[in-house]
Amino acid sequence: MARFEAALAGASTSLVPREHAETIARACTEAKFDARRLAIEAREAGTLAIPFVRELTRQVPGEAARYVHLGATSQDVIDTAIVLCVNKASQRILELTRRVGNAAASIAERHRDTPMVARTLLQPATPVPFGWKAAVWLSLVARAYRAFGRAAQDAAVLQFGGAAGTLAAFGAEADAVADTLARSLGLRRPPITWHSGRDLFARLGAEAAILAGAAGKIARDVSLLMQAEVGEAFEPAAQGRGGSSAMPHKRNPAASLLALEAAQRAPGLAATLLAQLAPEHERGLGQWQSQWLTLKDLLGGTASALGAMAEVLEGLQIDTVAMANNLEQTGGLAFSEALALHLARTHGKAAAHALTEKLCAQAVLEKRHLREVAKPVVPAGELEAIFDARRSFSGAHAMIERAIATWRETAP
Amino acid sequence: MARFEAALAGASTSLVPREHAETIARACTEAKFDARRLAIEAREAGTLAIPFVRELTRQVPGEAARYVHLGATSQDVIDTAIVLCVNKASQRILELTRRVGNAAASIAERHRDTPMVARTLLQPATPVPFGWKAAVWLSLVARAYRAFGRAAQDAAVLQFGGAAGTLAAFGAEADAVADTLARSLGLRRPPITWHSGRDLFARLGAEAAILAGAAGKIARDVSLLMQAEVGEAFEPAAQGRGGSSAMPHKRNPAASLLALEAAQRAPGLAATLLAQLAPEHERGLGQWQSQWLTLKDLLGGTASALGAMAEVLEGLQIDTVAMANNLEQTGGLAFSEALALHLARTHGKAAAHALTEKLCAQAVLEKRHLREVAKPVVPAGELEAIFDARRSFSGAHAMIERAIATWRETAP
Amino acid sequence: MARFEAALAGASTSLVPREHAETIARACTEAKFDARRLAIEAREAGTLAIPFVRELTRQVPGEAARYVHLGATSQDVIDTAIVLCVNKASQRILELTRRVGNAAASIAERHRDTPMVARTLLQPATPVPFGWKAAVWLSLVARAYRAFGRAAQDAAVLQFGGAAGTLAAFGAEADAVADTLARSLGLRRPPITWHSGRDLFARLGAEAAILAGAAGKIARDVSLLMQAEVGEAFEPAAQGRGGSSAMPHKRNPAASLLALEAAQRAPGLAATLLAQLAPEHERGLGQWQSQWLTLKDLLGGTASALGAMAEVLEGLQIDTVAMANNLEQTGGLAFSEALALHLARTHGKAAAHALTEKLCAQAVLEKRHLREVAKPVVPAGELEAIFDARRSFSGAHAMIERAIATWRETAP
Amino acid sequence: MARFEAALAGASTSLVPREHAETIARACTEAKFDARRLAIEAREAGTLAIPFVRELTRQVPGEAARYVHLGATSQDVIDTAIVLCVNKASQRILELTRRVGNAAASIAERHRDTPMVARTLLQPATPVPFGWKAAVWLSLVARAYRAFGRAAQDAAVLQFGGAAGTLAAFGAEADAVADTLARSLGLRRPPITWHSGRDLFARLGAEAAILAGAAGKIARDVSLLMQAEVGEAFEPAAQGRGGSSAMPHKRNPAASLLALEAAQRAPGLAATLLAQLAPEHERGLGQWQSQWLTLKDLLGGTASALGAMAEVLEGLQIDTVAMANNLEQTGGLAFSEALALHLARTHGKAAAHALTEKLCAQAVLEKRHLREVAKPVVPAGELEAIFDARRSFSGAHAMIERAIATWRETAP
Repeated sequence: MARFEAALAGASTSLVPREHAETIARACTEAKFDARRLAIEAREAGTLAIPFVRELTRQVPGEAARYVHLGATSQDVIDTAIVLCVNKASQRILELTRRVGNAAASIAERHRDTPMVARTLLQPATPVPFGWKAAVWLSLVARAYRAFGRAAQDAAVLQFGGAAGTLAAFGAEADAVADTLARSLGLRRPPITWHSGRDLFARLGAEAAILAGAAGKIARDVSLLMQAEVGEAFEPAAQGRGGSSAMPHKRNPAASLLALEAAQRAPGLAATLLAQLAPEHERGLGQWQSQWLTLKDLLGGTASALGAMAEVLEGLQIDTVAMANNLEQTGGLAFSEALALHLARTHGKAAAHALTEKLCAQAVLEKRHLREVAKPVVPAGELEAIFDARRSFSGAHAMIERAIATWRETAP
Repeated sequence: MARFEAALAGASTSLVPREHAETIARACTEAKFDARRLAIEAREAGTLAIPFVRELTRQVPGEAARYVHLGATSQDVIDTAIVLCVNKASQRILELTRRVGNAAASIAERHRDTPMVARTLLQPATPVPFGWKAAVWLSLVARAYRAFGRAAQDAAVLQFGGAAGTLAAFGAEADAVADTLARSLGLRRPPITWHSGRDLFARLGAEAAILAGAAGKIARDVSLLMQAEVGEAFEPAAQGRGGSSAMPHKRNPAASLLALEAAQRAPGLAATLLAQLAPEHERGLGQWQSQWLTLKDLLGGTASALGAMAEVLEGLQIDTVAMANNLEQTGGLAFSEALALHLARTHGKAAAHALTEKLCAQAVLEKRHLREVAKPVVPAGELEAIFDARRSFSGAHAMIERAIATWRETAP
Repeated sequence: MARFEAALAGASTSLVPREHAETIARACTEAKFDARRLAIEAREAGTLAIPFVRELTRQVPGEAARYVHLGATSQDVIDTAIVLCVNKASQRILELTRRVGNAAASIAERHRDTPMVARTLLQPATPVPFGWKAAVWLSLVARAYRAFGRAAQDAAVLQFGGAAGTLAAFGAEADAVADTLARSLGLRRPPITWHSGRDLFARLGAEAAILAGAAGKIARDVSLLMQAEVGEAFEPAAQGRGGSSAMPHKRNPAASLLALEAAQRAPGLAATLLAQLAPEHERGLGQWQSQWLTLKDLLGGTASALGAMAEVLEGLQIDTVAMANNLEQTGGLAFSEALALHLARTHGKAAAHALTEKLCAQAVLEKRHLREVAKPVVPAGELEAIFDARRSFSGAHAMIERAIATWRETAP
Repeated sequence: MARFEAALAGASTSLVPREHAETIARACTEAKFDARRLAIEAREAGTLAIPFVRELTRQVPGEAARYVHLGATSQDVIDTAIVLCVNKASQRILELTRRVGNAAASIAERHRDTPMVARTLLQPATPVPFGWKAAVWLSLVARAYRAFGRAAQDAAVLQFGGAAGTLAAFGAEADAVADTLARSLGLRRPPITWHSGRDLFARLGAEAAILAGAAGKIARDVSLLMQAEVGEAFEPAAQGRGGSSAMPHKRNPAASLLALEAAQRAPGLAATLLAQLAPEHERGLGQWQSQWLTLKDLLGGTASALGAMAEVLEGLQIDTVAMANNLEQTGGLAFSEALALHLARTHGKAAAHALTEKLCAQAVLEKRHLREVAKPVVPAGELEAIFDARRSFSGAHAMIERAIATWRETAP
């Protein structure tokens, strides 16, 4: 807020004499505020700007004090201050997202040929490369990164309209003042005041929720893979992390927990931001104020989720033997699609599907591997190929490559 | 769904013989479904795709029936079908938004010099042109239009991954089949399967909620302006609209009501979409399914809100005399900022603010116009200028022009 | 709506002659409506009541037609009609909840001594009886049942206020008419009109979301237990349920999916209902209308979730051998708390915790059972007791009994 | 958290020697914590309990340190600590709600015969007493008070289950320890552990959102009545409240703004709480953690909204002359229902409605009072009664009395 007032004084050359602008700017840099008292007075005033400006004015020496906040309105200084904070938070979020994306890309590359069983509806499906699973994560992260970056850039705009929003106080000078002010704060200038156009924060919030959700998706999968009964991947062990106050042996997915905690708060917070789009007339009752705290919680949570998952993916411990074992544990059922497709060539789809279903049931009943049960209906030479996971990976490889290429383009 | 199956059969040249593909395509065009029975069976199966494919297969004659849905999975056909529906809905929404934006732009142009009182926190503030108020609406609509259009385009992608998502059934042909399939459905092909990457629908939903909110913002203002005590603007009278079943004299803001109804449902629906981003592994339990009904309700509501407000803005009845009267009714208090700024030149901001506050209080107490009360402290020749609303519109004019120019660029 | 109009005509004895009331009542029973046309006209009118009353009036013969809807307002008939629908839906929901609760209680009783490993943060913790896990479900269901039942009863009230809500049209007869009307519809009469007091539907919606969430909680656990790698419990096999269109061998948690689908939509819908509490003045713009569709979706989803889980729990297939095996698979680590507590008696808590942690690490490292590793530090006679799951169940048994007793009281 | 640990040590008589329990209790009272460091370590550990217990243990002298937290788990101490905080917050919220209700009841009584125009869809409807409007507020507050009180009482329960939730560490003593612990903390004991039964906080959150919504409803109406063009009621003037940093004359509804700010954040926060009902197995990943911060924000916001509206209603400035004037300003149209009902006795409803509509249109067109226009069709002696607002208040009076009586019963 002090940065805004300093820049405003400097920009309003026709309203504020140069030496006073400098005095104000200096005071803004040095001003000390009693946050607690400001909070109490803000509640009384219905806005933080009034006690803030009063207190700042008190700290500006001499004649210059008369020129503080001249031509601006409460919402100008508050919204712009939020934009400046949000801007910084957004850069941090983008940086953490790049770490998550890069780590996922690295896993995707390194494990393009590591077979594991895919799981649909939490049941074993067909074999996929673990790298492909990471590429699906990456693809989600890449889209979310690009869209959040765009929303953050769109939201980096000055709020400056004065009393009703038309910069009436500045007369013909309005445009020049606004341009200078925007430039000195490193913000773009919007075509028109957005006191009651609250979409920029709503959009940024929705994109933050999507990023938090992307972190949550990875956390969901890691925590499921880390189940003792699955044991295919593990969060990196860290000093003091993941222990239990009651059970000494435990190794908890503590970082995934952090990501899921934030991801689960994000949709409700984003909804709050989306619900503030229809303030009354030129300045509404509560809508813009609701957005502040909500944005803070949402961006903080998003950063928390991404930071946790960056650490997890960068140090993910992957047990490729467990992956192979779990795949083998399906008793060949994970290859039922491959078998069905093979049989479809000779029997047609419906009949092949039925036959495969019968063979699977038989395998389950007799507790034999599907490969054994299928022997009578498949020529010996073709059996191995059907049950070789890697033989089915060419589609996955192409997808991995495209996902990585898209990421490289998105976050060079 | 039938369009997907037809296109799939045609694209899988190595799996499906050409004549069978043609038979399937024909059957897909002509197939009749008992929606009620499908719904019941879908509940039992846990997915609509199973009874749908079964029923479609039943209607495909001869040998060709064996080749229906070959290589695809339930989620491929359902997600793609939703994309096709959503695509159509999005075009309709964009078209309605263009009408809202064009109508707002027209008002902004026509009323660039119509003075009215701005209202902040529902209290009279300073004078603004009504056209500027419309330009604020326009600016919100323009940003929402651009972002929704982008999200709609991003969401126009094929879903096609087969059993676990890697197109394993198609071997080396996977890429070619997917490309052909995407092309024949008029969709882009994503870098990788998005069975468990649900951000595209979440982003589209958030943007729909923002558009609904933009319609809601305009509806909020119109319904407030239409209050009997304000009477500055009115929804166009339409046969059968806005009456009351109990009160014969009433003229209700019925279209604004429709917009607000949908706008008030939008954030919760958008939150539901945002909460589906972390499905388990390769295909989750309930997340994608939750998105269908939610998207339908949200896009339908958005179109409803925009359609209502397009009608309202295109036929808005504006009472410029009432605007002038309400401005005059403030007894000159709406010009207190202009007065304070004028006085600031000679007294400094703080003193001018205090003096103006005193003059305002005096005007209220003595029930006199502020112009009269201010006479002793302002040179006669300058008094008129301070109380002439249009003198303060130059900043507003520049904003109107920029807002319209941005709209023309956004929606040419 | 027709029921309301029939009852209204019968209740307004001073306004509506008896024979006309009977004619109206008869017409209300027999009236046919073209729902599609009503929908279109409702959109035009901004309310369904206007075309509905017009159409009903058209179908009332003779003089009686003049007396339809007399003294009521649109919101009276619509809100009351919704209450009547909601009332019916609530009864169905309570019935399904009783089935879920009874099934959980039965499992809790039957499996009070079936050891399984508890899982906290998705990691194995200590042994618990499976019946205790079911009793935790039951406890949640019991609280949700009681609170939903209360909210449903609270919401079973007449809406009847006339034009502005004061029943002005009925003069001194107002009270008597309202009482008769409420009685004939089987509803309570509220102290005052609630046209703009929308909490009853909001509260019912929140409780529906909690019930959906309870179903979701059970579904979450069942689907996790049903993972191939865990295999401790399974949804009952049903004809046509849980198959896959691509993978013939799959057995999906299809009913749990249905419950989770609805549970995941519930919070957003409940939020929409909660966001409608501040309509403008005596009748708001969009708030009550937003509640209709939302309530329908929410109650429908809740019933869907509960119905699915009633089926699942009533036929749940439980593999107690797998439970025992998974417990054994922890290599005794699930007993680390028991060991630590035993050691605490002699070493103090901190030292015991540290020692146990060391023994666990050793067990993991040497791939030996904790029982073996602990031998040197525990007297032989006490070792068995530490590693006997059932020895630790007395607290669980007491909880199971209390949970069942509470349920029996709640839903006798 | 320290209160929990002190009480736990005292309750576990068989595990913790009496003198150690006393040492722990003393240390708990005196312990100092570095909140910042705890926060950092909590993030690392994935739970606050671990660093908290470590730090507390460090501050317990001698042998006693070995007995801190014995038999409890992280979630026990955290959830119980939250319950203790929530309990206190709930009492404060109930106290503020009583002030709001009492103030509304007082207005309802004092203004039972003050006519004003009701407003439906923001348009003038028929005359109502201002006291009746306050009684509608009161009725909403009364229901919300009762339900929140119940939810708060339901949520005042101990969380105590140990490692997996079965109190295994305490053997046969479990029940007694839990009872003593609950009693010494002033909490009820639930039938069973609720580590993964998160409905209590969800229900309390929903009821808090309803209370915030009730405050928001009153704030909505007050801010609309306070519009310069309406001017029927005003927030009490308070030092430093409601001013504007740009416009010296303004008197803003600053307290209503505070209430609306919180009310508009409440549904999203409540949705977050409702979305945490399905944690995985015995302790979930993120659900309980998400509830903490969310509850804090929600209860804080609710108290803020209620506190603001208590002040407003207790000092509400009511302009009964403006109410009468605005009613008169309708030109008699507010009495159109009374006229239509009068005419219905002779013409039947439909014809009377049509005739009244014609007369209203004529009154509007000719800018004459409806009373004048209606003269030709109504016998002279009856005209006054039709246009006397108070004549239509008997239904309203009965409602006011019932609403007040209900409130007196609810909050004696």
